[in-house]
Amino acid sequence: MALLVQKFGGTSVGDAERMRTVADNVARTVRRGNQVVVVISAMGKETDELLRMAREVSSTHPGREMDMLVTAGERKAMALLCMAIADRGVEAESFTGSQAGFITDTVHTNAKIVDVRPDRIRAALDAGKVAVVGGAQGVSTDQNVTFLGRGGSDTTAVALAHALGADLCELYTDVSGVFTSDPRLVDDARKIDRISFDELLEMTAAGCPKPAMRSVEYARTHGVDLHVRSAFTWEHGTMVSKEADDMEQAIISAVVHDTDEAKVTITGVDDRPGIAGQLFRALADALVNVDMIVQNTSAEGRTDISFTVPHGDAATAQATCEALQRTLGATGVTTDDAIGRVSVVGAGMKTHPGVAATVFETLAANGINIEMISTSAIRISCVVAEAELERAVQLLHTAFALHDGPALVD
Amino acid sequence: MALLVQKFGGTSVGDAERMRTVADNVARTVRRGNQVVVVISAMGKETDELLRMAREVSSTHPGREMDMLVTAGERKAMALLCMAIADRGVEAESFTGSQAGFITDTVHTNAKIVDVRPDRIRAALDAGKVAVVGGAQGVSTDQNVTFLGRGGSDTTAVALAHALGADLCELYTDVSGVFTSDPRLVDDARKIDRISFDELLEMTAAGCPKPAMRSVEYARTHGVDLHVRSAFTWEHGTMVSKEADDMEQAIISAVVHDTDEAKVTITGVDDRPGIAGQLFRALADALVNVDMIVQNTSAEGRTDISFTVPHGDAATAQATCEALQRTLGATGVTTDDAIGRVSVVGAGMKTHPGVAATVFETLAANGINIEMISTSAIRISCVVAEAELERAVQLLHTAFALHDGPALVD
Repeated sequence: MALLVQKFGGTSVGDAERMRTVADNVARTVRRGNQVVVVISAMGKETDELLRMAREVSSTHPGREMDMLVTAGERKAMALLCMAIADRGVEAESFTGSQAGFITDTVHTNAKIVDVRPDRIRAALDAGKVAVVGGAQGVSTDQNVTFLGRGGSDTTAVALAHALGADLCELYTDVSGVFTSDPRLVDDARKIDRISFDELLEMTAAGCPKPAMRSVEYARTHGVDLHVRSAFTWEHGTMVSKEADDMEQAIISAVVHDTDEAKVTITGVDDRPGIAGQLFRALADALVNVDMIVQNTSAEGRTDISFTVPHGDAATAQATCEALQRTLGATGVTTDDAIGRVSVVGAGMKTHPGVAATVFETLAANGINIEMISTSAIRISCVVAEAELERAVQLLHTAFALHDGPALVD
Repeated sequence: MALLVQKFGGTSVGDAERMRTVADNVARTVRRGNQVVVVISAMGKETDELLRMAREVSSTHPGREMDMLVTAGERKAMALLCMAIADRGVEAESFTGSQAGFITDTVHTNAKIVDVRPDRIRAALDAGKVAVVGGAQGVSTDQNVTFLGRGGSDTTAVALAHALGADLCELYTDVSGVFTSDPRLVDDARKIDRISFDELLEMTAAGCPKPAMRSVEYARTHGVDLHVRSAFTWEHGTMVSKEADDMEQAIISAVVHDTDEAKVTITGVDDRPGIAGQLFRALADALVNVDMIVQNTSAEGRTDISFTVPHGDAATAQATCEALQRTLGATGVTTDDAIGRVSVVGAGMKTHPGVAATVFETLAANGINIEMISTSAIRISCVVAEAELERAVQLLHTAFALHDGPALVD
């Protein structure tokens, strides 16, 4: 008998038929002798709909009330799923974030988990019941309802699996696992059978949309094994654990991409100590989220500094740089919205310098200009023109022969 | 400075525009120097929609999960109203039934209030804020979310007004007060300015749809003054208090009606002691809600017993009577669905026998047959054929000259 936490996202329970299909799966899992805790998101596009109503009713949106509003979506879904499970002869009880013991900080709309005390969940399991928990919600240390933010249901599932000492946390979604690249861009993208936390974390940070990055961080920190899989096909998905197989070899797992950022460049800055510190302190004070940073020094003792920011922060970043332009002795500030980032992710890459060379050679040989580069122990990211991004992804996927699955290199 | 509890029903907050209109009124009331607690129902037809979803997803509807589901409606409404109030520069905080201190018994879908401990509401008021409370909900003594049933928001408002020692409880609805009769049936029905708890209780028991009877009982028991009024016209409505003016005179306040019941008749029963006891014990055991009861003894020592029950209980009542038919020596059991009840309500009626005479004479003079009669200290009800009901209401409204307002008689 295993204790499983199963998380179902919004599209997995988008309508009554989907809800019954999920209930079938839960009942089947119980009949096989498992204890099951379900974490559920709001149905379909309900969270978007609630936010639309809030905008329609008011231009003022206090965080406390926004959290009360959006958490109503999960409450409906969890109660309905319990009914559908009961219809299959299996007892089920729903639990709000508060009832499930999720204590959070007081930061509304994006609360962080402080503690998980799942006493009522344990009692329900001990009584032979399925526990259905509303995702992405909790109660703050000052007794108010809090929302963990979009994608927070994945985090709820992982945190609950950890607190309960579950055998496995299954994240059911509308894709059948983690892929070597986006199947919409790359025809022969393949599902990855096993991947390490570190690699998946780099992939989600570099644009892989599911599961939510925060939940992967939580799983990695607490060693919660994940199974990312489909609630539509029910096939075996991708297992995520501390160590993937053959960790000593450089395995290239995936080519991921995103187009969520803009590049800001401040040109002709004096090349003297303290300049970068001044600039990025000012950006931090303006609450701009800076991601990649590249600095190139020219022969004449002047330098260009480029960095990427989310599109939403680009205007603030541009204005902040312009305000500093004279102080820094800079000659100009430009923002480029039409960029994309392609990243190659694989464990053990650092000890295999050939990987980076292959990335740069492949892009150069195909006339794709690399505007920025950043690397980590298991990732190489290149910023290219947005118009070239899709081709870059396809070329790198082919270069590492990922259509045969994760590639051994060197 | 007064402390007011204002309750807004579903149609009062049916869409974003209505929500903003209600927020305007709350903000205006605060600016006039009052402390305000708002009790709110789910928006428009949302509760019906949630019940429809439950039927679509499952044929099993555990009470605990139904309550979790339907209370989501009020949560959305209360959060949205707080935002709209904040938009008008007035601070507002929403509270679930649990947060507002509503402790109930453990009877799901129709819970009874055990205690009200509105500490957090008081704290919000002391901090100069408006408190917005989700209607018809609470937390049970075993820590589960409970629903007080349809119309429960009126009860929430009255109970909260009592617990807080409020100066007045205003029940805002889609009608402009309590009327001398249903304006859809009687052209010259007039709004009643003042009425006593007893009279309003009899009226709601006899078919007057608003406010919910249970809330009137609560107000009567605890002496909570009510103001029933419109959230559409905002005009002065009907004040409800312990004693209306001129209580010593027989005032006919209203002619009300309902068509919610069926009449069951068991004929030719032995006229001996214990028969009625046997019959109504069996009906009680079958959970049939019996309302009016009439027994006529014929010359031959046999008797007919008729009683009314809600339409939903009629089939069970018929079957229960049939099962007893032989034991009781009865000759037959019939159910008549096509009946209606017209009731004349007025304080002090008992000491003025002329009122009953006027009722019977008016109906007889117009060829309307009275099938059953029942009376209380302040009400006379007659069951007539459903086809005659509308005419009976109009005739009695005219007979007591209620178009001039509540009538002094004798």
